[in-house]
Amino acid sequence: MRKHITGFSNPTVKYLRSLRDKKHRKRAGQFLVEGLRLLEDARASGRVPRTLVMAEGRAHPLLARLEADVMAAGGEIIETTPDILSKITGKENAQSVAGVFDEWDTSLAALDRASAPIWLAAQALRDPGNLGTMLRTCDAVGAGGLILIDDCADPFSAEAVRASMGAVFTVGLAQARWEAFLPWLRGGAGQLVAASLRDAVPYRGAAYAAPCFILVGNESQGLPEEYEAACDLRVTMPMRGRADSLNAAVAGAVLAYEVLAGLES
Amino acid sequence: MRKHITGFSNPTVKYLRSLRDKKHRKRAGQFLVEGLRLLEDARASGRVPRTLVMAEGRAHPLLARLEADVMAAGGEIIETTPDILSKITGKENAQSVAGVFDEWDTSLAALDRASAPIWLAAQALRDPGNLGTMLRTCDAVGAGGLILIDDCADPFSAEAVRASMGAVFTVGLAQARWEAFLPWLRGGAGQLVAASLRDAVPYRGAAYAAPCFILVGNESQGLPEEYEAACDLRVTMPMRGRADSLNAAVAGAVLAYEVLAGLES
Repeated sequence: MRKHITGFSNPTVKYLRSLRDKKHRKRAGQFLVEGLRLLEDARASGRVPRTLVMAEGRAHPLLARLEADVMAAGGEIIETTPDILSKITGKENAQSVAGVFDEWDTSLAALDRASAPIWLAAQALRDPGNLGTMLRTCDAVGAGGLILIDDCADPFSAEAVRASMGAVFTVGLAQARWEAFLPWLRGGAGQLVAASLRDAVPYRGAAYAAPCFILVGNESQGLPEEYEAACDLRVTMPMRGRADSLNAAVAGAVLAYEVLAGLES
Repeated sequence: MRKHITGFSNPTVKYLRSLRDKKHRKRAGQFLVEGLRLLEDARASGRVPRTLVMAEGRAHPLLARLEADVMAAGGEIIETTPDILSKITGKENAQSVAGVFDEWDTSLAALDRASAPIWLAAQALRDPGNLGTMLRTCDAVGAGGLILIDDCADPFSAEAVRASMGAVFTVGLAQARWEAFLPWLRGGAGQLVAASLRDAVPYRGAAYAAPCFILVGNESQGLPEEYEAACDLRVTMPMRGRADSLNAAVAGAVLAYEVLAGLES
């Protein structure tokens, strides 16, 4: 179906704009992705937007293919003015296309732990940029995906999706409380590893085993002590400076590359 | 000197507010830092704000010490309302204190390359969060500091300072064009290392030598080919996924930890 929208107060415009807000995303079960590149990443991973919103008169071979896919899937194409598109995305210079996706199943049950040797997990990760960066790191190290434990930033926010560089579409993603995560983990093979200063061995050359779940904690609090205690392995990274800390996404990535090297050696 | 300000249109309020903007920061040669924790990090590194702006009636032992230092250095203390403080910092819930610092010398000449075995360098790094994260990584790995090459984000922006977790005050910082950086580098000992896919050796166990300068490129373009060609060593990190890339700050950190391990083994 094709629609042409020229009015700022059109209810569809209001709806699309509301998806910038987490509460509305959760209620609708949908999220908005801006830019042809991310939409192409999604398409390549078999995710086709429910609705495609385009600035009038834009033409691009990739866009044409995307339009065809959306139509074939029974979706909707909306053409509108650049101003309305800017209003929807909240950016002064909006890119010429955005897509609305249905959120998907992010339960632990949807993950196949045997599908990858490494998994990342983050507890109470609050920064959507860090979250997206961790998804991107998952892609780089061949990790199965990212498990978000307790109250984390929304992986479907524009900032997280952008920072993931499309990895949100290609790597696994789950959200769970710790009370659900731990029994799930212990219901199968899996080594839980935390970066820690307590009772830890050097991260370099530690005895990592697949599937290895690398757990990082909240940006300002780190991991709760009882979460660390539940880990199979606590490793420590050199801290040569004044502050005993690294950015959470950085710590996860340094560990992930070490685990990758360890498992492959 | 102590001042009490209650009017939103006070010229000092306007001036402080203007420091949120890069253009005004450059003109004034000053920047604004919010929050007692960052101000404490600065103080511990011997950097005392020129002006301290506090919400009325706040008391804290650390704040008292900071006030004394500012007064001893001939600086200014401004007391004002929480609303005005929010207006200055641009945050709805401003912390109760902010400080104005003079920017310092960020020329290459101010760096002592012999003072540390590792240095980070970033070319055309646009994201202030990435920049701050790299400063923080410098602190963690004991690097001498960060060299910003070509047009990068402003290290004195509120976002960069915050992401650095205070490391902007404690590690070295320089800004230079490539045309100035390369002769400076070649004027002394120093190995220039880039993460690259061209003509590269595995990053793991490569022949790193101190002082080792780790160079990462722009977030979307990577390094220009001629910059890579000028490096002494090009190393490649495993990329197991769909996208051949990592977040710039993450790539720098993974490499920095590998270099640290290599130099210490």
